[in-house]
Amino acid sequence: MNRLHPLLYEEVVDRALREDIGRGDLSTEATIPPDRLARARIVAKAQGILAGIDVAAYAFRRMDPALQLEVVVHDGEAVAPGDDVLRIRGAARAILSAERVALNFLQRLSGIATAASQAVRAAQGTRAIIVDTRKTTPGLRVLEKYAVRVGGGRNHRFGLDDAVMIKENHIAVAGGITQAVQAARAYLGHMHKIQVEVETLAQVEEAVAAGADAILLDNMDLETMAEAVRLVAGRAIVEASGGIRPENVADVARTGVDVISLGWLTHSAPALDLSLLVTVERA
Amino acid sequence: MNRLHPLLYEEVVDRALREDIGRGDLSTEATIPPDRLARARIVAKAQGILAGIDVAAYAFRRMDPALQLEVVVHDGEAVAPGDDVLRIRGAARAILSAERVALNFLQRLSGIATAASQAVRAAQGTRAIIVDTRKTTPGLRVLEKYAVRVGGGRNHRFGLDDAVMIKENHIAVAGGITQAVQAARAYLGHMHKIQVEVETLAQVEEAVAAGADAILLDNMDLETMAEAVRLVAGRAIVEASGGIRPENVADVARTGVDVISLGWLTHSAPALDLSLLVTVERA
Amino acid sequence: MNRLHPLLYEEVVDRALREDIGRGDLSTEATIPPDRLARARIVAKAQGILAGIDVAAYAFRRMDPALQLEVVVHDGEAVAPGDDVLRIRGAARAILSAERVALNFLQRLSGIATAASQAVRAAQGTRAIIVDTRKTTPGLRVLEKYAVRVGGGRNHRFGLDDAVMIKENHIAVAGGITQAVQAARAYLGHMHKIQVEVETLAQVEEAVAAGADAILLDNMDLETMAEAVRLVAGRAIVEASGGIRPENVADVARTGVDVISLGWLTHSAPALDLSLLVTVERA
Amino acid sequence: MNRLHPLLYEEVVDRALREDIGRGDLSTEATIPPDRLARARIVAKAQGILAGIDVAAYAFRRMDPALQLEVVVHDGEAVAPGDDVLRIRGAARAILSAERVALNFLQRLSGIATAASQAVRAAQGTRAIIVDTRKTTPGLRVLEKYAVRVGGGRNHRFGLDDAVMIKENHIAVAGGITQAVQAARAYLGHMHKIQVEVETLAQVEEAVAAGADAILLDNMDLETMAEAVRLVAGRAIVEASGGIRPENVADVARTGVDVISLGWLTHSAPALDLSLLVTVERA
Amino acid sequence: MNRLHPLLYEEVVDRALREDIGRGDLSTEATIPPDRLARARIVAKAQGILAGIDVAAYAFRRMDPALQLEVVVHDGEAVAPGDDVLRIRGAARAILSAERVALNFLQRLSGIATAASQAVRAAQGTRAIIVDTRKTTPGLRVLEKYAVRVGGGRNHRFGLDDAVMIKENHIAVAGGITQAVQAARAYLGHMHKIQVEVETLAQVEEAVAAGADAILLDNMDLETMAEAVRLVAGRAIVEASGGIRPENVADVARTGVDVISLGWLTHSAPALDLSLLVTVERA
Amino acid sequence: MNRLHPLLYEEVVDRALREDIGRGDLSTEATIPPDRLARARIVAKAQGILAGIDVAAYAFRRMDPALQLEVVVHDGEAVAPGDDVLRIRGAARAILSAERVALNFLQRLSGIATAASQAVRAAQGTRAIIVDTRKTTPGLRVLEKYAVRVGGGRNHRFGLDDAVMIKENHIAVAGGITQAVQAARAYLGHMHKIQVEVETLAQVEEAVAAGADAILLDNMDLETMAEAVRLVAGRAIVEASGGIRPENVADVARTGVDVISLGWLTHSAPALDLSLLVTVERA
Repeated sequence: MNRLHPLLYEEVVDRALREDIGRGDLSTEATIPPDRLARARIVAKAQGILAGIDVAAYAFRRMDPALQLEVVVHDGEAVAPGDDVLRIRGAARAILSAERVALNFLQRLSGIATAASQAVRAAQGTRAIIVDTRKTTPGLRVLEKYAVRVGGGRNHRFGLDDAVMIKENHIAVAGGITQAVQAARAYLGHMHKIQVEVETLAQVEEAVAAGADAILLDNMDLETMAEAVRLVAGRAIVEASGGIRPENVADVARTGVDVISLGWLTHSAPALDLSLLVTVERA
Repeated sequence: MNRLHPLLYEEVVDRALREDIGRGDLSTEATIPPDRLARARIVAKAQGILAGIDVAAYAFRRMDPALQLEVVVHDGEAVAPGDDVLRIRGAARAILSAERVALNFLQRLSGIATAASQAVRAAQGTRAIIVDTRKTTPGLRVLEKYAVRVGGGRNHRFGLDDAVMIKENHIAVAGGITQAVQAARAYLGHMHKIQVEVETLAQVEEAVAAGADAILLDNMDLETMAEAVRLVAGRAIVEASGGIRPENVADVARTGVDVISLGWLTHSAPALDLSLLVTVERA
Repeated sequence: MNRLHPLLYEEVVDRALREDIGRGDLSTEATIPPDRLARARIVAKAQGILAGIDVAAYAFRRMDPALQLEVVVHDGEAVAPGDDVLRIRGAARAILSAERVALNFLQRLSGIATAASQAVRAAQGTRAIIVDTRKTTPGLRVLEKYAVRVGGGRNHRFGLDDAVMIKENHIAVAGGITQAVQAARAYLGHMHKIQVEVETLAQVEEAVAAGADAILLDNMDLETMAEAVRLVAGRAIVEASGGIRPENVADVARTGVDVISLGWLTHSAPALDLSLLVTVERA
Repeated sequence: MNRLHPLLYEEVVDRALREDIGRGDLSTEATIPPDRLARARIVAKAQGILAGIDVAAYAFRRMDPALQLEVVVHDGEAVAPGDDVLRIRGAARAILSAERVALNFLQRLSGIATAASQAVRAAQGTRAIIVDTRKTTPGLRVLEKYAVRVGGGRNHRFGLDDAVMIKENHIAVAGGITQAVQAARAYLGHMHKIQVEVETLAQVEEAVAAGADAILLDNMDLETMAEAVRLVAGRAIVEASGGIRPENVADVARTGVDVISLGWLTHSAPALDLSLLVTVERA
Repeated sequence: MNRLHPLLYEEVVDRALREDIGRGDLSTEATIPPDRLARARIVAKAQGILAGIDVAAYAFRRMDPALQLEVVVHDGEAVAPGDDVLRIRGAARAILSAERVALNFLQRLSGIATAASQAVRAAQGTRAIIVDTRKTTPGLRVLEKYAVRVGGGRNHRFGLDDAVMIKENHIAVAGGITQAVQAARAYLGHMHKIQVEVETLAQVEEAVAAGADAILLDNMDLETMAEAVRLVAGRAIVEASGGIRPENVADVARTGVDVISLGWLTHSAPALDLSLLVTVERA
Repeated sequence: MNRLHPLLYEEVVDRALREDIGRGDLSTEATIPPDRLARARIVAKAQGILAGIDVAAYAFRRMDPALQLEVVVHDGEAVAPGDDVLRIRGAARAILSAERVALNFLQRLSGIATAASQAVRAAQGTRAIIVDTRKTTPGLRVLEKYAVRVGGGRNHRFGLDDAVMIKENHIAVAGGITQAVQAARAYLGHMHKIQVEVETLAQVEEAVAAGADAILLDNMDLETMAEAVRLVAGRAIVEASGGIRPENVADVARTGVDVISLGWLTHSAPALDLSLLVTVERA
């Protein structure tokens, strides 16, 4: 169901190819004749959820539009060790020159999707949805947030411009939660939401009373979280955040929060192990 | 001793700021008056080696050149929990808008430097130097390779264009190690080296005999590595690679290899925990 | 209160300067010595609200950072014919080469702010806020939406990515309002809103029942609008849209809608008349 | 006859698509399956001259090269309310995501072509040609000047680098018309012309005597214009400028001037009303 | 008198620095401490006319804005072997890293200015001005055409968009000189000129009769050129072109042509020999 | 055997086309109908080695992907006057608009390849290989170094980042050859080489003793070169450099050096004379 428009990743892949190839792929130019053909396939070496197959495919096609690509596994589908993921046929040079960049994207994005899907599974049976944060890799946010969706998660803010998040530092500078929420309400149009980051139950109450659309419980223990959920009582969306990992998602989910956010998904999820195997094409 | 010229990171930081800020920082615009001043400091929350302080500082100055920045810890210096790393004074809006991007870079690069320095320490007393790989984050290679140097490591190839690495796939397509090395020797000028990736001792011998400058032992067990070192006997540089982590660096180093490369340094080293604290400036 | 971070307009101004200057300003190079100094001032020739003074100032400083600029009127302040808006002193060549680009931005943005402030005034005493649309000039959206804020208006969506707007065409393809709203709800995280464009009261009811956060009444007559407001009864935000101009804002506002959007603000508001006068500096 | 090479507009359209789509088209991704097909057509809702059909078509193809486009009306042809202008068939998502950007360009450019053609018609039977000015939208000059040509007008300077225009401010700084024209003549090669902006008949005479190729009569009344034409007597090209609109073109044209320039064509011509209608494709 | 606005060369210099520095200046990083200071000077090793000093200075300042630069020789001034041209003081690393790029620009541009000034001198006493062509280095046209002006030459067209040049191939496709000139006259506004490239005296007459503003005599012998000048008799500008070098400029000039163009100036003028000498700063 | 990946030249060609075409090709737009077809061929007017045919072909295809191109001579093949090099068929406008840019690249690159092949021939029968330098045209280095390879030469460093070259200025600042080589050895990974530029035999010995991989003999006379070769005795690669031209390559080669570098190849090799002839297509 999920696909990302190429407009959203072409530039970042082009940049990655230029970063790697620099002034030319010396090894390939030196050892492989330009007309040598090969077959290659990307093979999974671990279990997980694939994400980024279009991105990887684009990296190969960018090197040579004539490469024939067969997508075996689509984004969102599970892979197991030994599974073919993508099959490629065409100029050996193009395949070898794009290999590292294609794998760098595919492994990272699949790692994120795999992690997101674990977190989603852990929260199953509760009301909680799993979302990401802005702790993404510089330059790769659109791709990483897409991978979260592929894994069944949802997206928090894409950036500083699609919703208001009043954090501890804003509150300190603005002079209080109520004042900050009112200022934001007076500034925003009708299509943007306001969330307030809180650390105490008193702040929870103040934020809800001030009219926040959502509350972010920052690094609270499970008991206080549950208390906060009862206190809010449906008057705002309640999000749990801070040091959450797939292991403790289930516990957090059982507190009754609406949303669980994990920075871990994008800054620490292990890459999915994949590799590319080449066989020479017989003439 | 180490510093990176701004020409090498300005664009990537600008891009990261644009990615995060999008059409504007709604929260800050809405809640913080443009003339409000603040003090802030970045504080370490874990132990490690700092890297990227100039990059973080640039992110703040890019938002407002009038910000006053005091670098407390320089790249390559150790930090402990509670240490101030960077102190900032000036427009509250600029500080808050750049916070996330500055931290994203600083945490990632410091994590890499910390990991590299652990690996370097583990190899101490042996001849082995620690190097990185091309398994870097797309778009961040120059920064990540710099962080490896900050941690005391050295850099392998920067890309496909500064040395030849004949890998399994090249050998398969080119028709053999000897043929590939000869083709590369005939193609290259006098300032570029040739390395061959090998999996068996027979390949080690063939590569050395063909005139490779360096041999990469791919995923060998310790005993075979040691055997390979003896076999090469100084005729080429010997590099160990494949699944090495700080934990097993010492064992690998004791085999007598000249170089140990860890993809782990750039694709899996945990970020160093840092945070930014703001206090409002009194008028 | 309002200011736009230079990161958000530097590129577009640079591009405009390059577009106008091309391979050089022949007239200035030919007739003005490089060391000739001048004083200049931008003068209002009509009544209105100023917007974009930082953008105009940037255009001059981009041509010569040594120009001395005195901002006389700030964004959001009223001007009358004859008022000085910006005073400039320095190299005559730089002033003359940047003149057209600076004025093109300042006139357009001030025209939008002026129009927005008229609409805001027309809605005074009602609950309605004035917002813009996506019918902005290609490449200038951030600036034009800023000008709307300067004039006292608010911003609708910045683009396709910060809220969901289910329009007639989406409904047609998706197979109905209810189905579309449900699909959007299942896709979005907790910080993004859903609006539905409707043309009949039956659609209003369906959209509200499906859980839309906001309803856009498309090209309805005043009576139907008022009816829709009564029907919604606070269950969702109600926006009036379609062919609205400052002249009929008051009538629309009296229907009780929460929001009035005017594409006219950005695609048809007349530019504010301004001009630049130069006097030569005596040695 | 007129067509614009894609090299001249690809970047500006790409930028507009990125500006609108941002991190993704949430509405379309959420409500339309990626494989859903649709037919759409752009329909005229007013009378006018079409311009920019290739630009609009490019916006759709940029989103999906597989879209099938049928251009019904070509640039320079007249449209009436209800006329189909462009028919599109293919992926519903791509059509809906590109809609706004395609229309924004097509409406603006057609508006300019329509206005230009009115002005050209008003001057028919006289020697006067209709030209544009540099008062174009920042970033869109090449497109807007093309639209003027589509409407039957001609282009004045494209920028500061293809001809010399000595304006009031240059004269003030350079120390007089004669001095400025001589300086320009000594600076230019043989393929660039010199025009002088004048406000009085005395200046007309001085400019012609100094050897100007063209004279720009700035904001003169009709009588003085006619007098200026007689005075010049064919020794230079005479252009009328300043506050001219289609309504008074005929009067100005009858004074005998060679050229009439209207800033109005590009900064104030109303957009041509067009809309996109979608119908779902039956499987 | 001549100076080029930085907007016109910043990008090309930045690109050149990035092209040379790549992922870092290994030699400088490895051997020079970041705080080491040095003095350097660029010294002429041959006689010529300097051009591009601002461009070279920008290359150094781009590496380090704190470098102190003293421009000893300005663009358009003569240098002799041993003359200091630019003196630099500051960080040794920045000086060494920018050296090659700064020299590459300065040598090339000074070479062009030197050649242009020779050609101008050769034509002295005749009516002929010296102009360049479009045979410039890809990416450097604005700089190279500037250098021609610095040497006393003038500029022909900057590109395909500032004047019409009807060449042999256009005539072949358009169906004749008269037809092509008429088509161009009907297409152009009043500020662009038309030149026709001719190879025979019959074509000269046809072009003049058709109303060409200028005639380009392509590869004619001296006698035919003189004949063409007599034939034109002031009805159009006459330009001589084709294989002209400083050595034969005087002969061509004596035929009475108005303009002499030399592709040689930009594609073959030898670079001016310059070098950079560094001395270490005492603490 | 040699081909350059389009990723490495697309941008530079696009930039060159934009530089030349600017706001449009007035001559072609005015005189050639958009549907007029033509045949064209690029013809050699001198003897040489062709390089850059893919680059030239790309320039034409960039203007119109529908052009049919027949490559008659491939990179590295010899051409003689009158030989067809490339045949083109399709839209006359596209052919004429791309002509100058395509030729500018093809002539320059073929000139370099021709010169390199002369130098290579002159060194035949000796051990010396021919290499280029960093004295390339700003922005065109990758292309020019490719042309050297096409001509049979090899590439020295691509930039400052793929090998260390310790030059006179580094030695002066670093405090001596030994110190500089040791610093570089401690800084580099195992895949980058160190070369030292020397002017005396004493420096040769110091550099070799310090462990340099290669020695650059700067501007030495032939006798001293031969002496240096004997002194080094295979302990390092020996390169001769400084003012070498094809004429004296043979003499230098006979001294026994391993490498001869010529800045002349890229900064002064004469362009190969080529031209484009058009014939109109019959309907």
